[in-house]
Amino acid sequence: MPADNIQLDENGKLLHFLSIEGLNQTILTEILDTAESFTSIADRQVKKVPILRGKTVANLFFEPSTRTRSTFELAEQRLSADILSLNVDTSATTKGESLLDTLRNLEAMQIDMFVIRHQDSGSAHFFAQHVRPGVSVLNAGDGQHAHPTQAMLDMFTIRHFKKDFSQLRVAIVGDILHSRVARSQIHALNILNTAEVRVVAPRTLLPVDTESLGVHVYNNLEKGLKDIDVVIMLRLQKERMRGALLPSEKEYFRLYGLSQEKLKNAHPDAIVMHPGPANRGVEIESSVMDGNQSVILNQVTFGISVRMAVMSMIVGQSRQQSGEES
Amino acid sequence: MPADNIQLDENGKLLHFLSIEGLNQTILTEILDTAESFTSIADRQVKKVPILRGKTVANLFFEPSTRTRSTFELAEQRLSADILSLNVDTSATTKGESLLDTLRNLEAMQIDMFVIRHQDSGSAHFFAQHVRPGVSVLNAGDGQHAHPTQAMLDMFTIRHFKKDFSQLRVAIVGDILHSRVARSQIHALNILNTAEVRVVAPRTLLPVDTESLGVHVYNNLEKGLKDIDVVIMLRLQKERMRGALLPSEKEYFRLYGLSQEKLKNAHPDAIVMHPGPANRGVEIESSVMDGNQSVILNQVTFGISVRMAVMSMIVGQSRQQSGEES
Amino acid sequence: MPADNIQLDENGKLLHFLSIEGLNQTILTEILDTAESFTSIADRQVKKVPILRGKTVANLFFEPSTRTRSTFELAEQRLSADILSLNVDTSATTKGESLLDTLRNLEAMQIDMFVIRHQDSGSAHFFAQHVRPGVSVLNAGDGQHAHPTQAMLDMFTIRHFKKDFSQLRVAIVGDILHSRVARSQIHALNILNTAEVRVVAPRTLLPVDTESLGVHVYNNLEKGLKDIDVVIMLRLQKERMRGALLPSEKEYFRLYGLSQEKLKNAHPDAIVMHPGPANRGVEIESSVMDGNQSVILNQVTFGISVRMAVMSMIVGQSRQQSGEES
Repeated sequence: MPADNIQLDENGKLLHFLSIEGLNQTILTEILDTAESFTSIADRQVKKVPILRGKTVANLFFEPSTRTRSTFELAEQRLSADILSLNVDTSATTKGESLLDTLRNLEAMQIDMFVIRHQDSGSAHFFAQHVRPGVSVLNAGDGQHAHPTQAMLDMFTIRHFKKDFSQLRVAIVGDILHSRVARSQIHALNILNTAEVRVVAPRTLLPVDTESLGVHVYNNLEKGLKDIDVVIMLRLQKERMRGALLPSEKEYFRLYGLSQEKLKNAHPDAIVMHPGPANRGVEIESSVMDGNQSVILNQVTFGISVRMAVMSMIVGQSRQQSGEES
Repeated sequence: MPADNIQLDENGKLLHFLSIEGLNQTILTEILDTAESFTSIADRQVKKVPILRGKTVANLFFEPSTRTRSTFELAEQRLSADILSLNVDTSATTKGESLLDTLRNLEAMQIDMFVIRHQDSGSAHFFAQHVRPGVSVLNAGDGQHAHPTQAMLDMFTIRHFKKDFSQLRVAIVGDILHSRVARSQIHALNILNTAEVRVVAPRTLLPVDTESLGVHVYNNLEKGLKDIDVVIMLRLQKERMRGALLPSEKEYFRLYGLSQEKLKNAHPDAIVMHPGPANRGVEIESSVMDGNQSVILNQVTFGISVRMAVMSMIVGQSRQQSGEES
Repeated sequence: MPADNIQLDENGKLLHFLSIEGLNQTILTEILDTAESFTSIADRQVKKVPILRGKTVANLFFEPSTRTRSTFELAEQRLSADILSLNVDTSATTKGESLLDTLRNLEAMQIDMFVIRHQDSGSAHFFAQHVRPGVSVLNAGDGQHAHPTQAMLDMFTIRHFKKDFSQLRVAIVGDILHSRVARSQIHALNILNTAEVRVVAPRTLLPVDTESLGVHVYNNLEKGLKDIDVVIMLRLQKERMRGALLPSEKEYFRLYGLSQEKLKNAHPDAIVMHPGPANRGVEIESSVMDGNQSVILNQVTFGISVRMAVMSMIVGQSRQQSGEES
């Protein structure tokens, strides 16, 4: 059993949410179903439920983030949690405390749930291994390892628009090598029995063990998009250009950027996804991003419900019928 | 009809609050009356009403601010909103997203209301033109264009102390050229039928079209203050000195700084206002700022009620009788 | 009567919380008893009481802080306050406002309670002297003067583990000279009739008037720890090394660092405290910090209850039976 198993208790209930690895189809489906029940809350006049009332969630962001941090904070507010948000760059660590001391001190403040984003792979696991019983950890992105709530909001988006994973061909396009998002997506798509998962990337942006992940590898975007139902574009970190892994933005766009022209290779009703923030004109053409096949903004919206779902399941409430707060 | 009209629906109800231009006396008076009903809340033990309960307000400050941001946040808390505050310098835009992408992403988070301050004139209008129906935008200051909630809190302060605009002479003193505050004040004073509005400034700090705004122009402070009931001093941006628009702070104070001596030219019970933060000894003498004609701190207090009023009217509740939250 | 007396009204009720000096045993004990009643709240499902509902607390941190700021914010949330947190470096003062103008403007926002941390000794007193009646000030650390909520959470921790102050020998070890924490602790221990208070430090880190504080001075740690029940280690500011007050970290640890070996000089069931953040290997050995005599994390936990207690007493509610919020 991998270390990931600390995510579950002996009855298979969710204790932490660290990576898609180590989870099974039942629990992923429960997350999607629970999130589904929360989407209706968003349409109500009062978008709040008391599920985390009187509980405290600490958001620890060691890396900057708008989208992920904001949707976590909104999810927490809509669950009525007390919230402590620390931009950790500018606080304790300036006095030289270790990560473990930071954890221990915050834990002593009776935090019920930690949401952590950190530049080092394994940080969220480290936290989960060291918190005391009853305290939970959610991984909001750790190094190049995992970004499981992003993967689950992607799965939610795919199911919302395409229903049945077993009939779908999904292509993930771009910098697979450095992407925690891609890694988590591949695991989730496999666990949910997706018919075919492809990765499309230049050789320099592929991990050596790609095939072992159970995906088909393409180095040509036109071919990789053939008959595809879901296209997931990844953000290209511009730093890669400097690192000699890539020629130039222009050349990258010519080969791997998703243009309207290239999108024609996919199934006519294929959806286009991107975790954001996108580099318009680098990995994706503006007209595709804003086009009618794009579901990129739906992903953001669903991100709130998915994060509400994971937090709710951790405190023992799933498939919310969600009574309004009195 | 000017683009400003997107502020109102077909029945003249407030949808956005972007600039005083384009609004009429009825709606300005409704804002003042609604704000009046909120001032009593501030004196209660529990200063909260549930008007924005379960709604989410995003505060987007692209420029630093204490006074405006804090009073908006307090207004939102007292209306029981969920709040997302982004200091945009340090977040999404560091990854190079455009303003429109920032808007689209936040909107996808089901934000009900945006409060935006931005260094570019027209930013708030831009937001309002692009948000989807049902989402509102409040301008918390855009470039040198407008700062309408500031103007309305100033009108509230004037009405509070002086009652009838049609009997009043008001002088706005200082850097009219660069001031979004002055621009919004002049429009509001005119719409509310102020008897006389004067601007007092050196020629280098006056826009070319000043007279067309319906104001009288004075280049001499003593003369400009003659028989005045309300003196509004503007903050002098010290950058102007470097720009050769002005000689020196000392010289500026000698000519245009409001001293006790110069204030004697005004009506004996004239009130002195300033949007803050003031430069003591530059545009205003300390003893005037702290003197008994100063209502500068009242302006800050009224700012909360006025912002509560505008937000309430946008969600369809005005002249609040304001039941306490149960 | 010292200026400290502005902390109390004519009936001896707490108005502000600025320094331990000027308070008596009755009031310190009331704080401890009230905090005791709040510790049970922390164990409940819903950790909230409505004591500050509809009241606004402003946290003004002119110095960075994680522990103190976070526990204040959590205490305020658990008391259901509205909260305005200003990191003052990055806001108003960038426009050059004085401390008094900052105070006046925030006060005009109808703040009920200020929590202030500032690098200048006397800042919190300054605030308390200038706020209007009904507004309260809590000192979260001012220069090298006082840190009274830290001292009270330390007293709470000592009473929790050791019960009766009149039977205790307490040693405070380290940089007494620059420590606002030590100063406040010494006053509190004396007021609570501690049997013996010792300070242990190199001569260069002792104030000239140490003996007048009613403590015994030791320059040798082994001797200073003899028969001690409570050891309080202070953080060593590494800047002191550069200031020629100290030889080197290594040498400091050899002489004044609390190792397991040196701790054997104390009473076998002595507790070890530290206000944090600790420099492991400088003033305290890691194994002592994490050892079973350490109550350092308990201090953090108790800090929330103690801060809730002080704020509650100020609004007139002590020894909370603490009904849950409906």
